[in-house]
Amino acid sequence: MLKDKYKITQLFDFYGELLTSKQKMILELYLGDDLALVEIAENLSISRQAVYDHVNKAVSALIDYEEKLGLLARFNQREQMLLDLRQDLLDLSYNSDASKQKILKQIEAIINF
Amino acid sequence: MLKDKYKITQLFDFYGELLTSKQKMILELYLGDDLALVEIAENLSISRQAVYDHVNKAVSALIDYEEKLGLLARFNQREQMLLDLRQDLLDLSYNSDASKQKILKQIEAIINF
Repeated sequence: MLKDKYKITQLFDFYGELLTSKQKMILELYLGDDLALVEIAENLSISRQAVYDHVNKAVSALIDYEEKLGLLARFNQREQMLLDLRQDLLDLSYNSDASKQKILKQIEAIINF
Repeated sequence: MLKDKYKITQLFDFYGELLTSKQKMILELYLGDDLALVEIAENLSISRQAVYDHVNKAVSALIDYEEKLGLLARFNQREQMLLDLRQDLLDLSYNSDASKQKILKQIEAIINF
């Protein structure tokens, strides 16, 4: 489970504020600073096993929130729909290239929001 | 606080699964079936005050989740951006009306997703 850092990072971005402050801190070190469990253990003067347990419990909580709420899946699916829309726009030819560029910029803004 | 049912309904749609089953049931009666507190009290054979307390606590929890996560605000803001985009598309003239209709349908689908 701990291998899929991208997915965990997405979940953390969505639900991180619901974790305890300790869980948040350790996950930030693990995800944001990309430290190995052993490095985090050394930094915090706790055992590698303790770090693993904190990370594991935090990730389980994040997964549980997503299973209940499904907001990340909804967000990602909307994003995919927007990417499809952008592609369809790129494939079309308009009578005004400036208009097309404007629309594409708006879609980029929504995707990156 | 209990007056803004639309906002509470939005919050409930987003975070309702994090409430206790009792809170969920009572909020569903209050929001979904649009029952007055006194009617819910009669249905459940508890006092009006007890219903009020359940609703109040549940709504506070929902507000707390949104204050921490802000996902509803993010969703609503994206929605507004999509509505603006749709309006801009409607204001433009394309060389193909069929293309325009297709794009508009895609945007509708994203908004309603």
